[in-house]
Amino acid sequence: MSDRQEGVLYGVGTGPGDPELLTRKAARIIAAADVIAYFAKRGNHSHAHQIAAELFAEDVTELPLLYPVTTELDRHSPAYRAAISGFFDDSAARIASYLQAGHSVAVLSEGDPLFFGSYMHLHHRLADRFACEVIAGVTAMSGCWSLAGVPICQGDDIVTVLPATLPEAELIDRLAASDAAVIMKLGRHLPKVRRALLASGKLDQATYVERGTMADGHFQAVADKADDHAPYFALILVAGWQARS
Amino acid sequence: MSDRQEGVLYGVGTGPGDPELLTRKAARIIAAADVIAYFAKRGNHSHAHQIAAELFAEDVTELPLLYPVTTELDRHSPAYRAAISGFFDDSAARIASYLQAGHSVAVLSEGDPLFFGSYMHLHHRLADRFACEVIAGVTAMSGCWSLAGVPICQGDDIVTVLPATLPEAELIDRLAASDAAVIMKLGRHLPKVRRALLASGKLDQATYVERGTMADGHFQAVADKADDHAPYFALILVAGWQARS
Repeated sequence: MSDRQEGVLYGVGTGPGDPELLTRKAARIIAAADVIAYFAKRGNHSHAHQIAAELFAEDVTELPLLYPVTTELDRHSPAYRAAISGFFDDSAARIASYLQAGHSVAVLSEGDPLFFGSYMHLHHRLADRFACEVIAGVTAMSGCWSLAGVPICQGDDIVTVLPATLPEAELIDRLAASDAAVIMKLGRHLPKVRRALLASGKLDQATYVERGTMADGHFQAVADKADDHAPYFALILVAGWQARS
Repeated sequence: MSDRQEGVLYGVGTGPGDPELLTRKAARIIAAADVIAYFAKRGNHSHAHQIAAELFAEDVTELPLLYPVTTELDRHSPAYRAAISGFFDDSAARIASYLQAGHSVAVLSEGDPLFFGSYMHLHHRLADRFACEVIAGVTAMSGCWSLAGVPICQGDDIVTVLPATLPEAELIDRLAASDAAVIMKLGRHLPKVRRALLASGKLDQATYVERGTMADGHFQAVADKADDHAPYFALILVAGWQARS
């Protein structure tokens, strides 16, 4: 039996984009970590890495976790699921070896680690075996409604977070049944979402936000957006509160 | 016409409770503000004030905004609405006079200013007239699922934020129609919410979190909570992702 102490696993939210929107705790944990792990696509920068890189210790070990190339696979196929599951297993094993050797490992996660973050796949595999702490972060949607100055909800509002991939009829029903909503992953679904906002009576409460977490972010009323172009990470905010003010 | 520059209004999220979960930007703005405003009930501490007080400049002007006593009024009565609206008008006017005199004013807001925060009532009254910036914060619900280590949602999950005040039948329908949910303002509604979780098939995914944003916070499976006691600010997390893992 070794008397060496195992390291601690940290799931660290890096916030929506501005390095100043890291929490003070996240900054401290990142600066002190022996190993910094982060998910990235091959050849691509990691946004979380870019946000936090100025804080890394000089002698830090960087552990990029590169998603396998699965472009030829259907995302719902067993082959895809097996590839992704195997990738998360391997990633967890690599992190576990550092933890067992006594090193602390901070896994960077854009926004908040447990809110749509890939970190949860590592947490699920490691949190029962190692000391672990999750550092909450500011979500991308908070960054967007703060940029746009849109009070999203108040009092007893019902707030719904919806993927733009939903069928139009379901979007209409869910928007009509919510006081406030955030519609994520807009991309090519913008025309359908615009129709659903109109049909549900929510168009006048809806704000389009593009690159809302970046320095060059911008926003406008959905009703004023004439074209159908939207990046994948654009989102729409439906303000519950302003409707009654 | 005066050549004196007007001050900037900042809506500053102070995060869920731990002063280290303030963002670095919030800490900078708070330390540099001429005036720090915050909402409080008469005789009560402000939680946001408590979180941020260590950062105030020595010569800061503190501006507590004390809610009027309305205990004798029905919250939905015209008299209540008039009292609250007049209070927000007066509060905005007090802040405006500092801004006009060239002072920067930071309004502290627990969690995130535009997500269920009272700051939005000031924003609504002042943002058209003065330079204004909202500093996003970590929400209480993020603090709670991070404490509990509950991965709340992933992929195309539909997430719903619900007040526990909803009628039981509506809670059942909305829980059944959501992948993930956060049920807020639990208090005396816990028995009803527990029944709704059971009826909607979500009980096994539900975690009760009490004082989740405080140093002494704790959590447990709702299925394991035998008593019916819950403070007003306790909440229940219904994990979307774990259900399929």
